Amino acid sequence: MNRLPFAIALVHRPVVDRRGDLVTTAVTNLDVHDIARTARTYGVDRFYIVTPVQEQLTLVERILDHWHQGHGAEYNPHRGEALGLVRVTASLQDALADWGQEVGMEPLPVLTGAKARDGLSYGACRELLKTRHLMLVLGTGWGLAPSLFANGWPVLESIRGSSDYNHLPVRAAAAIMLDRLLAAGAGEK
Amino acid sequence: MNRLPFAIALVHRPVVDRRGDLVTTAVTNLDVHDIARTARTYGVDRFYIVTPVQEQLTLVERILDHWHQGHGAEYNPHRGEALGLVRVTASLQDALADWGQEVGMEPLPVLTGAKARDGLSYGACRELLKTRHLMLVLGTGWGLAPSLFANGWPVLESIRGSSDYNHLPVRAAAAIMLDRLLAAGAGEK
Repeated sequence: MNRLPFAIALVHRPVVDRRGDLVTTAVTNLDVHDIARTARTYGVDRFYIVTPVQEQLTLVERILDHWHQGHGAEYNPHRGEALGLVRVTASLQDALADWGQEVGMEPLPVLTGAKARDGLSYGACRELLKTRHLMLVLGTGWGLAPSLFANGWPVLESIRGSSDYNHLPVRAAAAIMLDRLLAAGAGEK
Repeated sequence: MNRLPFAIALVHRPVVDRRGDLVTTAVTNLDVHDIARTARTYGVDRFYIVTPVQEQLTLVERILDHWHQGHGAEYNPHRGEALGLVRVTASLQDALADWGQEVGMEPLPVLTGAKARDGLSYGACRELLKTRHLMLVLGTGWGLAPSLFANGWPVLESIRGSSDYNHLPVRAAAAIMLDRLLAAGAGEK
């Protein structure tokens, strides 16, 4: 597909917990690995891990080192290749600023959530990819905080499975969204 | 979508490791949770965990108990709802026999793998769902063992992202496959 460079961000703050309270979630090794591998498979150009917690930021750097120079690099070079997409920033604003500097244009954040019933359609988002530098923003915990949705940024339509149950792991949601947006022949499937 | 009951199976033996050697992989708590939640979201009727290792089988039963009757049930009922789809069997044959008994017809296994370039298309598989009781078979480790592919069962075309890199976590592959096969409006997207 003919598109501009595209980034994703996994946000650990501001997000909400199951009661809807504002929280900071912990970065998990698994989210970093799973989403990086999926992002690499779909040709995503950058994967931002957003966390304001210095210890968590350091944890991610340690993970990256392990797979880039450590035993991991020897054991499984594919991991290092995927993790090469990863950057860590203290805020979504920092991620957007970094990505904007990288592409030399102001990027457009596209928010995601399980409740966005009448959001931006996947087809419309695929069209946007041709003219804008998008950053797909995924929330951990029970989703991105309401404050982010107050910015007037586009919101991708929620994934509807085929049941009323809608509690996808963020790792699965990321995979489904990237497949719908970026797979070879996406839109014709 | 108008379809017959549909099951998936996550196989821990026979699978291969990165050298292609036959191995038995460990059941991970995460695979069980992630794939159960995704399966529940897409209305999958049954999720089989296939492992010949008694200890692993016991582990899964403990996980299920925790979320059905344990603290988990109180903390997050949605998990128990998803895990209600899970069954554990010692072999894929046992899973097929159990599913066949459940639906009163011989089920058709559909194998999956990262290398099945010219396999069954998603469109053809959606058609099959209307007339056969399918069981989508996913491999852990580095994929299902060659012996399984010698059975003449259909093989679903591999997921092509938009790069030459193809190392999706099985959790992500499962999510993408279920979305392509079962999402509301799948095939028109």
